[in-house]
Amino acid sequence: ASDRIFAPYSVYKGKAAFSLSPCLPTFTKLDSGALVVDRRGSIMMSFMPAIGERKYDSDKKQRFALSATEVGSLIAMGPQDSCEFFHDPSMKSSNAGQVRKSLSIKPHSNGYFVSLNVVNTLLNTKDNFSVPVTTAEFAVMKTACSFALPHIMGWDHLTSPTNQQSSGKVSFQ
Amino acid sequence: ASDRIFAPYSVYKGKAAFSLSPCLPTFTKLDSGALVVDRRGSIMMSFMPAIGERKYDSDKKQRFALSATEVGSLIAMGPQDSCEFFHDPSMKSSNAGQVRKSLSIKPHSNGYFVSLNVVNTLLNTKDNFSVPVTTAEFAVMKTACSFALPHIMGWDHLTSPTNQQSSGKVSFQ
Amino acid sequence: ASDRIFAPYSVYKGKAAFSLSPCLPTFTKLDSGALVVDRRGSIMMSFMPAIGERKYDSDKKQRFALSATEVGSLIAMGPQDSCEFFHDPSMKSSNAGQVRKSLSIKPHSNGYFVSLNVVNTLLNTKDNFSVPVTTAEFAVMKTACSFALPHIMGWDHLTSPTNQQSSGKVSFQ
Amino acid sequence: ASDRIFAPYSVYKGKAAFSLSPCLPTFTKLDSGALVVDRRGSIMMSFMPAIGERKYDSDKKQRFALSATEVGSLIAMGPQDSCEFFHDPSMKSSNAGQVRKSLSIKPHSNGYFVSLNVVNTLLNTKDNFSVPVTTAEFAVMKTACSFALPHIMGWDHLTSPTNQQSSGKVSFQ
Repeated sequence: ASDRIFAPYSVYKGKAAFSLSPCLPTFTKLDSGALVVDRRGSIMMSFMPAIGERKYDSDKKQRFALSATEVGSLIAMGPQDSCEFFHDPSMKSSNAGQVRKSLSIKPHSNGYFVSLNVVNTLLNTKDNFSVPVTTAEFAVMKTACSFALPHIMGWDHLTSPTNQQSSGKVSFQ
Repeated sequence: ASDRIFAPYSVYKGKAAFSLSPCLPTFTKLDSGALVVDRRGSIMMSFMPAIGERKYDSDKKQRFALSATEVGSLIAMGPQDSCEFFHDPSMKSSNAGQVRKSLSIKPHSNGYFVSLNVVNTLLNTKDNFSVPVTTAEFAVMKTACSFALPHIMGWDHLTSPTNQQSSGKVSFQ
Repeated sequence: ASDRIFAPYSVYKGKAAFSLSPCLPTFTKLDSGALVVDRRGSIMMSFMPAIGERKYDSDKKQRFALSATEVGSLIAMGPQDSCEFFHDPSMKSSNAGQVRKSLSIKPHSNGYFVSLNVVNTLLNTKDNFSVPVTTAEFAVMKTACSFALPHIMGWDHLTSPTNQQSSGKVSFQ
Repeated sequence: ASDRIFAPYSVYKGKAAFSLSPCLPTFTKLDSGALVVDRRGSIMMSFMPAIGERKYDSDKKQRFALSATEVGSLIAMGPQDSCEFFHDPSMKSSNAGQVRKSLSIKPHSNGYFVSLNVVNTLLNTKDNFSVPVTTAEFAVMKTACSFALPHIMGWDHLTSPTNQQSSGKVSFQ
């Protein structure tokens, strides 16, 4: 873990805070030597409730990992648009349906409400976080997510290998 | 092929799937040592028909390589715009006209239909793929293609050689 | 300081000039080896008054460091929008309130006025700079700030470590 | 010149062709070791007249170097906007005014006309090139120029030196 970097973009408000951090994909090497995306990347959103002035309870942190397509929804949002995503961390396992998470982004007069709702029927708990973000904060989120999107897709390895070019032949179009 | 990377952006739907992958340009070295683009880059679109639930037939894969200018068309599309491109893989050879491919992107109520049509008069086959994409998926395609465009053009080699600067002279504007 | 680079974007006008330069964040190493953002990055704006034709007085330079969120405001501005930011360099110290800076960006017929106001009650001075920028100059500012934003947030360290992949397991979605 | 790279974006039409290539800035080292932009970067536009089908006369090539602010004008253009730039290659020398170049970009029904006009009173020549570009081609120009702009400004050297961080102190906001 020696080269992990923590540089979250955080929005701290009165009742709760959230932060965004990119999570890169992992790759697996094939026998041919080629690399294939193994685990897909995401933008991790972490929410914490406020427990005092400028103090937040990291023990009650809840997470929601935005996929590339969910990041696309966020990037494409106009001023009056809203979106909502539903995740089940145990999807396709025997615990499916026991924890349900929904993230919504809804417009208000001067920006958006970003809200996370987590219902855990195993622990019989409900957590709800709602953070108002200004249009400026949302612009940072959009710009940073647009920047990060090709990286979480693994498209940042696009550098043409100029030192492996074939020699001799030259063609201009 | 030890440093090839596979990180396609895939859209899987009921009747067919397609994926996007950037293909970088190749360079040729001139006698002067300078590098010139030899083969241009593209965004490769690969379509497969569905043959069951979440299963796709890779033996019936058909491809369509978007040029830089075709990528420009895709990036510039507004919500109500459509576009269509025609390729002949044997253009300018004696087989010209025997295989005709057309790719179209057309708006529908909540996104676009991305369709590939391939007519092969040699094999007497016709293949047709049509994949509905949501506005979120199309936003990912636009963002990823905008990111990739300078790379497929070979413009990603733009890093000023700061360790080769002339010495002594300093000028501010 | 051997690898510092000065490449400001400067707008020189009749009564004053300003320049924009990105300031990168600094990182601190945790015991785990991970890196955490220590001091946040910014876009530094520096203003100088004119003291003759194409001459500016660097002794009277005043600075204003735009945070990531303030950069988000600038990027999100439409043609008729305006914004204003207030900074107190001594905030939370015993000198709080003695120096007050405000930066405003306001539309005019063919672009914007970018103005900095500095009131120093200790020195009993007031400085005011106002620089008209064209829409073309503002487009450069927006594009350059959009480019720099992920860097001042520390998100530019997003390169997936492809040479650290787990071996053997290969999965396609 | 061993690491020069030629990857122009070219638009070939019936009467003329033009290509765009980024030119990076050069840097000068100060005594302190810091680097300062010496010569500013640009986007070089090169025009050639047609002399036959798909043949162009490189002996009659004329150039026009777009500055960062002129690139900003191009990037900011809406569908109905036009712009025009005037250059004098001998500005501020004794030959000022003897060669006048103007580049204009004007909308037409399905894209833009990009035209270069060069009047040389020394050689008593006039050259005029006019190339129709489609909206797709213009989208490529805008995307590529937006990508290149921070590079021609020298802002691409923005990578935080994470291996030079101060040790010990850790602060979260």
